[in-house]
Amino acid sequence: MNQTAPTAAPRRGREGREGRGASAAPAARVVRPGMASGKYKPLSDDDMRRIHDTALDVLENIGMGDSNHERLLHYALPKGCKLENGRLKFPRALIEDMLAVNATSSVAYGIDPRYDLELKPNRVHYGTSGEAVTILDYDTQHYRPSTLVDLYDAARLVDQLEHIHMFGQPFIASEHSDNSFTHDMNTAYAAISGTRKSISLGVAEVRNIDPLIKLFDTFVGEVGGFLKRPFCAFGGCPVISPLRWGYDNLDVMIRMAELGLTADIAIAAQAGATAPAALAGALVQTFAETLACLAVVNMIKPGSTIHFGMWPFISDLRTGSFTGGSGEEALITACTTQMCNFYNLIASVPSGMTDSKTVDAQYGSEKAMTTLAASLAGATFISPYPGMVGSLLGQSFEGMVVDNDMLGSILRVVRGVEVNDTTLSYGVIHDTVFGAGHFLGNPQTLELMKTEYIYPQVADRRTAGAWEEGSKETVYELARVKVKQMLGSHYPVYVEPATDARLRELFPITLKPDDMKAGNGRW
Amino acid sequence: MNQTAPTAAPRRGREGREGRGASAAPAARVVRPGMASGKYKPLSDDDMRRIHDTALDVLENIGMGDSNHERLLHYALPKGCKLENGRLKFPRALIEDMLAVNATSSVAYGIDPRYDLELKPNRVHYGTSGEAVTILDYDTQHYRPSTLVDLYDAARLVDQLEHIHMFGQPFIASEHSDNSFTHDMNTAYAAISGTRKSISLGVAEVRNIDPLIKLFDTFVGEVGGFLKRPFCAFGGCPVISPLRWGYDNLDVMIRMAELGLTADIAIAAQAGATAPAALAGALVQTFAETLACLAVVNMIKPGSTIHFGMWPFISDLRTGSFTGGSGEEALITACTTQMCNFYNLIASVPSGMTDSKTVDAQYGSEKAMTTLAASLAGATFISPYPGMVGSLLGQSFEGMVVDNDMLGSILRVVRGVEVNDTTLSYGVIHDTVFGAGHFLGNPQTLELMKTEYIYPQVADRRTAGAWEEGSKETVYELARVKVKQMLGSHYPVYVEPATDARLRELFPITLKPDDMKAGNGRW
Repeated sequence: MNQTAPTAAPRRGREGREGRGASAAPAARVVRPGMASGKYKPLSDDDMRRIHDTALDVLENIGMGDSNHERLLHYALPKGCKLENGRLKFPRALIEDMLAVNATSSVAYGIDPRYDLELKPNRVHYGTSGEAVTILDYDTQHYRPSTLVDLYDAARLVDQLEHIHMFGQPFIASEHSDNSFTHDMNTAYAAISGTRKSISLGVAEVRNIDPLIKLFDTFVGEVGGFLKRPFCAFGGCPVISPLRWGYDNLDVMIRMAELGLTADIAIAAQAGATAPAALAGALVQTFAETLACLAVVNMIKPGSTIHFGMWPFISDLRTGSFTGGSGEEALITACTTQMCNFYNLIASVPSGMTDSKTVDAQYGSEKAMTTLAASLAGATFISPYPGMVGSLLGQSFEGMVVDNDMLGSILRVVRGVEVNDTTLSYGVIHDTVFGAGHFLGNPQTLELMKTEYIYPQVADRRTAGAWEEGSKETVYELARVKVKQMLGSHYPVYVEPATDARLRELFPITLKPDDMKAGNGRW
Repeated sequence: MNQTAPTAAPRRGREGREGRGASAAPAARVVRPGMASGKYKPLSDDDMRRIHDTALDVLENIGMGDSNHERLLHYALPKGCKLENGRLKFPRALIEDMLAVNATSSVAYGIDPRYDLELKPNRVHYGTSGEAVTILDYDTQHYRPSTLVDLYDAARLVDQLEHIHMFGQPFIASEHSDNSFTHDMNTAYAAISGTRKSISLGVAEVRNIDPLIKLFDTFVGEVGGFLKRPFCAFGGCPVISPLRWGYDNLDVMIRMAELGLTADIAIAAQAGATAPAALAGALVQTFAETLACLAVVNMIKPGSTIHFGMWPFISDLRTGSFTGGSGEEALITACTTQMCNFYNLIASVPSGMTDSKTVDAQYGSEKAMTTLAASLAGATFISPYPGMVGSLLGQSFEGMVVDNDMLGSILRVVRGVEVNDTTLSYGVIHDTVFGAGHFLGNPQTLELMKTEYIYPQVADRRTAGAWEEGSKETVYELARVKVKQMLGSHYPVYVEPATDARLRELFPITLKPDDMKAGNGRW
């Protein structure tokens, strides 16, 4: 294929042009959380119905194992579930009923209301996520254990990154990994100290829920205040695939439903290992497992909200290891998403789980492929794992910044093309052909510059000449500079000093005040 | 979002498992050229009709400038076109008629018939492309002028890369840039010496066509042999946007139609510079410009084949420069594709035109985003620019190898999920739950390992531990090793010695025989 090399149009001074539009009102933002999507439909309606039907067969006839759990049975048996040999079986009609009463939308409250996210099918949002255990250190390229102060830094970074709409706990504070209470109180504290966006936490044990709520009530200065605007979701994985309950997180999920809070779950059965290798079969099983969770929370309280975290994972069948960056993963996640939208569920799906160990071309390629697929399929709540590397092993801060640009671009794709008399531009074409001969100075161009086009923060659009004259940086290097700027300067005081003192009195907070001020030498 | 870290399933020895399936017949390949697609539809049917209608208004009332071209008018005026002030105007009915007679499929012949590509709407194929002018040197990270021997190397590389289905000339031989005859004869020679796949060449002047055909006839050993199986497409950009003809490539296009060959064109109007900034308007204009070409070749010979190369490009409106890696580019290309499929045209579109200057995370992200969008929209003939960097300025060989993996993964997404009684896997789930408890050793898993799952060549799926114990390579570094292996060993003799002597006698071939043998020290 031959084509004329694109010609740079006459340069007009970036500064002058950037100046225009700078005052664009928020409503005119090029992209925003909750953009409508769903124009990629990998499955036929019949495919989805067959997967659904088979999942219901699975729940009715095979059921969920390890179901001798008192609270579970307390709710499930009166509704018509049957316990046989420790397996809880769900009648088809019960599942259909629970699907019918399940809430089809929810609000993920921000700590600051301007970060509230209205979650409903086919509306795209991005958040961090993970429970990784390491940080990929930029200088040494070594995966070192993640710590509490890293988590505070991650929260501060997300606080500044436009296209990461909420802060889900991306990794653990490894110094507290032997004590889930100390761990969970500290991660909650690190999160609220670093960001005003909506947050979510992994909670290992149900006994930590009430103290967490107390911590948040103290933070907002009102007993019961947190439950009025629950800005934190508590999550976990209540299922051990194939088709068994995991008690610690089942307890958390049950408690969420009892409190009227969103159950933020993720069921990550791995095709070829803990789910069938056939992708349709993996969809059947994870749909069944996630439906079992949906049924439980709605048996507890009809109309419960559940982030329908149906996360089929993929194995590299040569080794049996997880591969998060594969084409199969992109595909099956898009299928999951489409099914959720078809059944009016709040699709919570992962993407961006690259198998690359560093922030390289494979990283970018796998992140974009999986995230675009999930986004175009219209997932409501995507964990695109910004900055996550090594098949979910570790977090790169620089990667977060790189991925923020990618997420903005993908949201631009999601937004689509507006077609109307004005945008069709017949008059603009006519006037240009018979007038100036080019469009760069056309009023339409100037008008659309800040409303139709999105510009990256670190992705490099310089000419090759300028790049060679400079330091020939990769975007990873450019992001490093940005991370240092962002983390070296953004030390917000989101917890008032008096509240901070109270929190430190009530809870075993270990995050050092000195680490929460500029000039601490960490960045 | 909390979730259980994926557990590596028991390791079973990669070698033993890889052994199975190795004998899989070609029919069982996981992905292949021409996979059915089109499940991403960014536009509504009404959007497409409005863009189409406006494009026809443009052709009828504004028309194409610089139309005082004898051969053009020879064909166009008798069909009802009107020439007014140098602009050729196309009646709506004429365009509709030409759309109706235009060929809706074609074969891109391979030099070897097993590489024949059946081109029809909604069937995805990938090829190189470009007319870049430089090579990004791996060691120095310097963009140096591309040469003839580089082109030969690129052909040999494509010859070995499974997911690049044809070899379009990716860059020029700069040492011959002052003489288009020597240039074109040599690039043709380099292509047929390096690959047996279908090829395409940029042809600057129509007078080179007959000598090229003679060269190819000599190659196949039969006068008229080339036209029986035309394994090379001749291309160019016959339009200078907005809405004017460029004579050199218009001549080539007219000659193609006269010879009954495919017109391989690319109309790259740049939104915000040579097309409206409004994306809908850019679609209108490029659709009009490409339809004008379609009309011309079908006025010459009804039923002509044209690769409908509607390539709207995007500007970074801050500078007016081309940005090929943007979200807007991914989106508008998907829209183009959908329109082509709607009107039964052979969609020829670009992707992968990253603005990154090297093979980094931005490179991977922009390549994957744009290529997945075009692929899911179902483009027939995608130029994903494997290895191209710097907004189409230069070629990276290592990038080609990196991108081959990406293309395989994307084709896996395109393939979709087969849903049937077997793949739904109810029995497999049942037996596993009540039996082994995991799926890794299940016969279904072993059976699907080589037919449902695709494995990368260089993309790294090692554990982070293995990566740290090794040299902590990026995929760019891994690809460098692969490129050296591939180009150091693959010196096929695709041109028989006697034929080679004859070609060198007839044409001013400058590619040195010593550079076409192993052990030449170049790799």
